[in-house]
Amino acid sequence: MIEGNFAVAQSGGPTAAINASLCGVICEVLRNDRKVYGMINGVKGAIDNNFVDLGEIFDDKQNLKLLKNTPAAFLGSCRYRLPDFNGKSDIYERIFDNFASKNITMAVYIGGNDSMDTVMKLSEYSEKNKKGVLFAGVPKTIDNDLVGTDHTPGFGSAAKFVASAVSEIARDCAVYADRSATVIEIMGRNAGWLTAASALARSATSNAPHLIYLPERPLSREKLIEDVKGCAARNIVIAVSEGIKNEKGTYYSNLDCNSGHDKFGHAQLCGSAKVIENIIKETFGIKTRSVELNVLQRCSSHFASLTDLDEAEMVGAFGVKSLLSGSTGVVAGFERVRDYEVKPIINNVSKVANLEKTVPDSFITENGYDVTEKAIEYLRPLILGEPQIEMENGIPKHIAL
Amino acid sequence: MIEGNFAVAQSGGPTAAINASLCGVICEVLRNDRKVYGMINGVKGAIDNNFVDLGEIFDDKQNLKLLKNTPAAFLGSCRYRLPDFNGKSDIYERIFDNFASKNITMAVYIGGNDSMDTVMKLSEYSEKNKKGVLFAGVPKTIDNDLVGTDHTPGFGSAAKFVASAVSEIARDCAVYADRSATVIEIMGRNAGWLTAASALARSATSNAPHLIYLPERPLSREKLIEDVKGCAARNIVIAVSEGIKNEKGTYYSNLDCNSGHDKFGHAQLCGSAKVIENIIKETFGIKTRSVELNVLQRCSSHFASLTDLDEAEMVGAFGVKSLLSGSTGVVAGFERVRDYEVKPIINNVSKVANLEKTVPDSFITENGYDVTEKAIEYLRPLILGEPQIEMENGIPKHIAL
Repeated sequence: MIEGNFAVAQSGGPTAAINASLCGVICEVLRNDRKVYGMINGVKGAIDNNFVDLGEIFDDKQNLKLLKNTPAAFLGSCRYRLPDFNGKSDIYERIFDNFASKNITMAVYIGGNDSMDTVMKLSEYSEKNKKGVLFAGVPKTIDNDLVGTDHTPGFGSAAKFVASAVSEIARDCAVYADRSATVIEIMGRNAGWLTAASALARSATSNAPHLIYLPERPLSREKLIEDVKGCAARNIVIAVSEGIKNEKGTYYSNLDCNSGHDKFGHAQLCGSAKVIENIIKETFGIKTRSVELNVLQRCSSHFASLTDLDEAEMVGAFGVKSLLSGSTGVVAGFERVRDYEVKPIINNVSKVANLEKTVPDSFITENGYDVTEKAIEYLRPLILGEPQIEMENGIPKHIAL
Repeated sequence: MIEGNFAVAQSGGPTAAINASLCGVICEVLRNDRKVYGMINGVKGAIDNNFVDLGEIFDDKQNLKLLKNTPAAFLGSCRYRLPDFNGKSDIYERIFDNFASKNITMAVYIGGNDSMDTVMKLSEYSEKNKKGVLFAGVPKTIDNDLVGTDHTPGFGSAAKFVASAVSEIARDCAVYADRSATVIEIMGRNAGWLTAASALARSATSNAPHLIYLPERPLSREKLIEDVKGCAARNIVIAVSEGIKNEKGTYYSNLDCNSGHDKFGHAQLCGSAKVIENIIKETFGIKTRSVELNVLQRCSSHFASLTDLDEAEMVGAFGVKSLLSGSTGVVAGFERVRDYEVKPIINNVSKVANLEKTVPDSFITENGYDVTEKAIEYLRPLILGEPQIEMENGIPKHIAL
């Protein structure tokens, strides 16, 4: 077993599960009687020698439970990208000097796609310059677009929030007798995973959303109008990705907001849902509105998926175990072994970093406005279960540095 | 005790508690061994003779529990305003004929301000034309702007969602080391109650929102800029009402979206938060974004206030009791008797209908960007407690007609 202490960082956009992974890291390190230092604001903390001793903060188990249910990154985040190196580099040397001063020989980096780039560079630098520090990535992203893993921690909670919100908004839409349309914009610019999860809103009492548009399929103005025309529902609910494009490959969010046509002169820009709202309003003259679910998709810890939180914690712990056994330059992930069970796996980071996994064809129906039963089967287990949330004064209690 | 059966309707914009009131009505009527007919789509159901027998649908107690936790209006809603009458009126006669055919002598109308106008007109018509039907209003509105009651059912759940969402978004904002601003737009065009409730997001670990702007106070561009400049927080969170106006009385949502100045030529319009976002971005050059909480404020049953739901149910039952004892032309409401306890009261509908209660001066701080301790004391009890939600396939289970 590798000797020495641990460092851990969080990076990229926040999720409801990124602190659950941190929780898994802390618990596993403490179980192994090592020290675990949190880098503040991602790799910047390592550059600036800005660490906190997490063992001190979390000697109280109650605090770990709070951490697991606190949204966003407890240690702060950064969007800093390490420069490429060639031989020796000042920034890299500072990081490894700071690690050495705390006897840090293993580091876990919890983050999205960009963060895996950091893991790759740091582990390469360490090997080439014989720094003796091992690096493992623990994924998180609500976008679910990482390769080499069945799904990503953070996605299940976002998917659960999206499905629940869409089911509630559908109720809200259904109260009036007049025909109407509601367009709900969902995150995920290039990968439609989260938009696909809106299909989980359907139940015995509602088949909304009636139309689902993923960025994996172009959506022409004509098709949109045909689809709406053919929709039997009185109060139509449409789930649309923020990154939907038309047949020319132009993002809807880059079309003129009012007309839905190409920008010209004083065109104004807005989100994809607003553009679609205006096209439907103009074409059909029915009451139409749009709703952006916005950042609540990634920070709604009050309604996280327990499956997601538990898995996020497990994969955090697994990252620690992998390092202790000598792995480096790896990214943890999940393999789905049964319906439904996952086991943690590791991949070489070079096979994961800077790649993107989109929704496969087999998950999208031929008509291009829905997902298949296979997609539902894949998605459903990820949103099951609810954590017990500690409340204080009527709102969820969080923990902060 | 008055003889005969009951009718009940829901009207106006949906809330998370309007079905809890319906639940209270149904239970109390069934306890008194009468029939209770639901009018479909508000008073339109009575005009079109479109009723459902709620005793049949809800003979199963489990369904009543589901109803209490289902958002929006189970019976559907309408935005129809009854015409004024003078002597006899065809529409009114149709309503009373349809009531008579089912021996309906008492009717409960669950709704907002406009609905109380319906209660007033129907009870007056009934009295003047000796129809022998009694009418009671049961209030609901997330806006909390009804006079004659300490607060309105539906407000507490919306306030709890707003407070929780703001507290989660504040975590999401706080992860980056760079200065930023996030502007959160909250419902309530003329009354700032719900925006005031954003103050309940504050906790031991966060003092966001740092600036709170209610529609009760004008907000000049200069004041906004001064306030942001004076704000010590690194990641500023601003809660703003959708109905905020500038010193000239112009809604921010009627200002040019990009410049925040008066509309001119090809000006584009957007929500108040977006206008404020653009003013801050332009003035300070910091990362700024805006978030509209939108309809989730009124339909997030998955995170309703138990206090609100229980009170909504109680006031529904109280409406039934008032009718049975012979009251008509009344609206139920709450008196706050202790800290915290409420008792149901009734008001004459003419003292309530078509009036609006805004946030009092004593609830707004002198600097104009916050609420007072008195406001917090008033608001806090309304968001306490969480209902137990029945889940199915990872999302809350609802009931529908």
